[in-house]
Amino acid sequence: MVSKDSQSIDQEYLNSLRHSCAHLLAKAVLTLYPGAHNAIGPSIEYGFYQDFDMGEVKLSDADLPKIEAKMREILPTWKQFTFNEVTLDEAKKLFKRNPYKVELAIEFAGEGKKLTTNDPGDFLDLCKMGHAANPSKEMKHFKLLSVAGAYWRGNEKNKMLTRIYGTCWPTKNELAQYLAMLEEAKKRDHRKLGAELGLFVFSDLVGSGLPLFTPHGTIIRDVLDAYSQELRLRQGFQRVWIPHLTKTELYKISGHWDKFGEELLLVKSQETSDELVLKPMNCPHHQQIYAARMHSYRELPIKYLETTTIYRDEQAGEMLGLSRVRAITQDDSHVFCRPDQIEAVYGMLISIVQEFYGTIGMKLKARLSYRDPEQSAQYLGSSALWDTAQAIIAKVAQEHQLDYYEAIGEAAFYGPKIDFMATDAIGRQWQVATPQLDFVQPQRFGLKYTDADGSDKTPVMIHFALMGSIERFLSVYLEHTVGVFPVWLAPVQVQIISVGADHVTYCQQLGEQLTAEGIRVELSVHNDTVGKKIRNAAKAHVPYMLVIGDKEMNSDMLHVRVRGQDRVIEYSHQDFIVLVLQQIKTRANQL
Amino acid sequence: MVSKDSQSIDQEYLNSLRHSCAHLLAKAVLTLYPGAHNAIGPSIEYGFYQDFDMGEVKLSDADLPKIEAKMREILPTWKQFTFNEVTLDEAKKLFKRNPYKVELAIEFAGEGKKLTTNDPGDFLDLCKMGHAANPSKEMKHFKLLSVAGAYWRGNEKNKMLTRIYGTCWPTKNELAQYLAMLEEAKKRDHRKLGAELGLFVFSDLVGSGLPLFTPHGTIIRDVLDAYSQELRLRQGFQRVWIPHLTKTELYKISGHWDKFGEELLLVKSQETSDELVLKPMNCPHHQQIYAARMHSYRELPIKYLETTTIYRDEQAGEMLGLSRVRAITQDDSHVFCRPDQIEAVYGMLISIVQEFYGTIGMKLKARLSYRDPEQSAQYLGSSALWDTAQAIIAKVAQEHQLDYYEAIGEAAFYGPKIDFMATDAIGRQWQVATPQLDFVQPQRFGLKYTDADGSDKTPVMIHFALMGSIERFLSVYLEHTVGVFPVWLAPVQVQIISVGADHVTYCQQLGEQLTAEGIRVELSVHNDTVGKKIRNAAKAHVPYMLVIGDKEMNSDMLHVRVRGQDRVIEYSHQDFIVLVLQQIKTRANQL
Repeated sequence: MVSKDSQSIDQEYLNSLRHSCAHLLAKAVLTLYPGAHNAIGPSIEYGFYQDFDMGEVKLSDADLPKIEAKMREILPTWKQFTFNEVTLDEAKKLFKRNPYKVELAIEFAGEGKKLTTNDPGDFLDLCKMGHAANPSKEMKHFKLLSVAGAYWRGNEKNKMLTRIYGTCWPTKNELAQYLAMLEEAKKRDHRKLGAELGLFVFSDLVGSGLPLFTPHGTIIRDVLDAYSQELRLRQGFQRVWIPHLTKTELYKISGHWDKFGEELLLVKSQETSDELVLKPMNCPHHQQIYAARMHSYRELPIKYLETTTIYRDEQAGEMLGLSRVRAITQDDSHVFCRPDQIEAVYGMLISIVQEFYGTIGMKLKARLSYRDPEQSAQYLGSSALWDTAQAIIAKVAQEHQLDYYEAIGEAAFYGPKIDFMATDAIGRQWQVATPQLDFVQPQRFGLKYTDADGSDKTPVMIHFALMGSIERFLSVYLEHTVGVFPVWLAPVQVQIISVGADHVTYCQQLGEQLTAEGIRVELSVHNDTVGKKIRNAAKAHVPYMLVIGDKEMNSDMLHVRVRGQDRVIEYSHQDFIVLVLQQIKTRANQL
Repeated sequence: MVSKDSQSIDQEYLNSLRHSCAHLLAKAVLTLYPGAHNAIGPSIEYGFYQDFDMGEVKLSDADLPKIEAKMREILPTWKQFTFNEVTLDEAKKLFKRNPYKVELAIEFAGEGKKLTTNDPGDFLDLCKMGHAANPSKEMKHFKLLSVAGAYWRGNEKNKMLTRIYGTCWPTKNELAQYLAMLEEAKKRDHRKLGAELGLFVFSDLVGSGLPLFTPHGTIIRDVLDAYSQELRLRQGFQRVWIPHLTKTELYKISGHWDKFGEELLLVKSQETSDELVLKPMNCPHHQQIYAARMHSYRELPIKYLETTTIYRDEQAGEMLGLSRVRAITQDDSHVFCRPDQIEAVYGMLISIVQEFYGTIGMKLKARLSYRDPEQSAQYLGSSALWDTAQAIIAKVAQEHQLDYYEAIGEAAFYGPKIDFMATDAIGRQWQVATPQLDFVQPQRFGLKYTDADGSDKTPVMIHFALMGSIERFLSVYLEHTVGVFPVWLAPVQVQIISVGADHVTYCQQLGEQLTAEGIRVELSVHNDTVGKKIRNAAKAHVPYMLVIGDKEMNSDMLHVRVRGQDRVIEYSHQDFIVLVLQQIKTRANQL
């Protein structure tokens, strides 16, 4: 099923609409607050923002209706944008009151870029092209969403500006749908759920973007990771272990040093002259393990797997719950294979992705990212190898009946890949697994295998992670499930609730029995009322509750309250244990 | 069983003997090489060293017999050391030809220390007290061992000096025993074994003190760690997860900032102004998790466990295989309990230590480390709490029938502890687990629990790791076992060897059958001779080999070669599987 790549065309139109709406917002704010200056105002995913230097004025969400009203008042007069190319001197003169525009103009001119002004009739701005053709008609369906602080150019050493977020859609219906989705997303905010369910915490002493996982949160991490590993161990992957610290030299050879730039966290050794860095990637290390001894063609494919944390720096304003962190735990793996093994290996990896996300209950879309043959000089590796590999990827995608589209020019310079997108319960798409072929790094590190004819050959490497970042995956999965986890992932699978003091010992014995079977149990045996204990367990979304009173103590029967159901079901001890274990084993999504 | 603390008295005597011997070595070298200068020459565990600036002369191990002979020539003339206190000016004059002694003299004087010279008759040196009373009689049993390079004061920016290592013992017999042990230790060197068995590798691109673990090495790490965790999970410990990076502020509050000094690896954020560091300890993070919500007295003890890597810097010359690394993985845990729970918790921890080292096959000795009551101001926490806790530790040590001695003044300032020492197969003792009470950190981080009467109380914390550093433990364990691992830890438990091409498919099927049972199998099905395949498996110390030919393919019987035994034993498939699984389950040390 090849779906046409119409997404990128639609997106271009949406971007122009939203970016134009940022201009309208700027005009409205500058009209209402004549002392304000507008800084940048780009379109972003699902909307736009516009930054302002508001001088002494403090804006809050309460000011948004007034600003929105002013935008609606101005919009009918905006018939079209007029663009003019200007010199740096002209730009400096036109925007002399706005230091942000002047700074940008000087910078753009210095980079040899054209300076363009646009004017929809009554509002001159410095800007690149790409705006709505007929603003007054096309831009009607907008909404301002929130006010936040943001440093000028994202640098905390600069002035803190006021950022207003908004969204804009081609039709009333699309806007309404998006706002409804936003409402739903707010309820599902993983930061809120994480706090309510006690899964992870942040500490000011540890720092932002550095979450700490509680016992309950760690269970979810561990169980997901164990599953991700199990799917690969079954296929002959082997676990390896590498440290988080390394000499910069490793990344200078791999090419990551230049790529990651300011995202790298540099480490100072006080005892040696070593130049060190926290690893932003694991592949160079795994290649060092491969390179430590000779390999025969018969040994390939060699498949290393490791769940390990990489570190990348982020600007203070960019860090957000588990979505954007500085400590990123990857369920990473690397396959070293012969060119003739690419098809079998790639097919195996896709099967694993399908099984994992099938279990998780998220639908997959796939983008096959190819090189642009007209820019072949930009890509490393022989054309023949690229063509073969891309044909294999397409073939494997068909064989696995992926819902996919092909994207020319989206490959990395070192090899083609499939980008998988998973759709969550409210329709949002998230980039997840990306099996990535790599023709370049094995060469850079001089990896070899001895082929059947005794000659030395360079293996192909495939990078492969299932969740990618476990932290980011958890943020998505928490919002997907609203914290209502299936039994196999629930931190507490069974809550045992005592009716009175006489039942506590029996509850403890029952707890030990279930624990010995491998079921995660928590006891509520303190002095609260049964009603309160049940409400607490319900708030924690515990799948099963067992209320233990005289009746249960004097028989083999348990009365089981099932999450989300009003009824109480009777089971024998043995049948209940079998039920729960079965759900754990099959990783069932439903109770 | 309280054994008297005679060790420390013996050690003091040994130290004086060995330090005196370093003087004798200095005298001999300066006699043979008049241009040389002696720098420092301390006693170390099992011996001593002496550093020299040899000018242009290059020494090697081949020069040691000549130097030793000169020492034996000089020794009879050394009847006793004479000590004299001197002023800085006198010291500068006496040692004017030796820049190292002058530098030390200036430094000692600056610190307000006394300057003492010693002279055994014909060799003046600047030195503290603590020498053999009758050198010519007591120092006979010495031996020079090796020559190495060492930076002056351990700083790689300083000049590289020549270091000569030696040993000295009170009796001929003790010297002979030690030299025999050294020979045995050389054969067991874990770096040699690690390379031969392919367990871990170092890469110049990654850096020294930063090992990478191969699939086989990772199995041993993982299985040991899983066992260490299992023993604690059974007792209600809960896994948590923390990042490796943190703001320095955390360690300024905990007190580790000052303690670790130059061992800290400082991290530079390019995107924020955060001052960051790689964590040298996990306890402050675990306390942040504890502190994130209120706890009732009923919830205690709360027991967090996590296997996670800490980072400490080392001087280039100090890093050694897995014994001394910069990436230290700890099987760490922290218990938060009420004072009335210390006894039960501490007893539980000691049982775990006994079970773990019993399984590993290493005998334990224990040192109970108490405060010095005459220096009570040096210790934080109330005297009553200390006395109670120390009494509990002694009681628990008795109840667990530990082989222990009590050491006054050896406690940390924040609480008493037991230091466990494990004895390896050739009699060397290694410090291993240390359950450490901590009365101070919970206070510094403001940890609380609500007591039965509704008041806020501060919990006691107990630090507890079983292996401590997994890397260091592996170095000890590798040398203890010479790489001959019990079945449960062997990277490959069963080697399946095909006789000819006709048997390969059957071998693969058998391999899959054993793998499905949870047995770690490797196949030798390539073209080598059966003899060579057997020799390779024997070199890798694989516990069981199955040679598969026509006879085995046509019957249910397997012919099993058992490691270290000459005979071949016949088993049915089922019996063999039961045998191996039983050994894995019981963690048997013998086949």
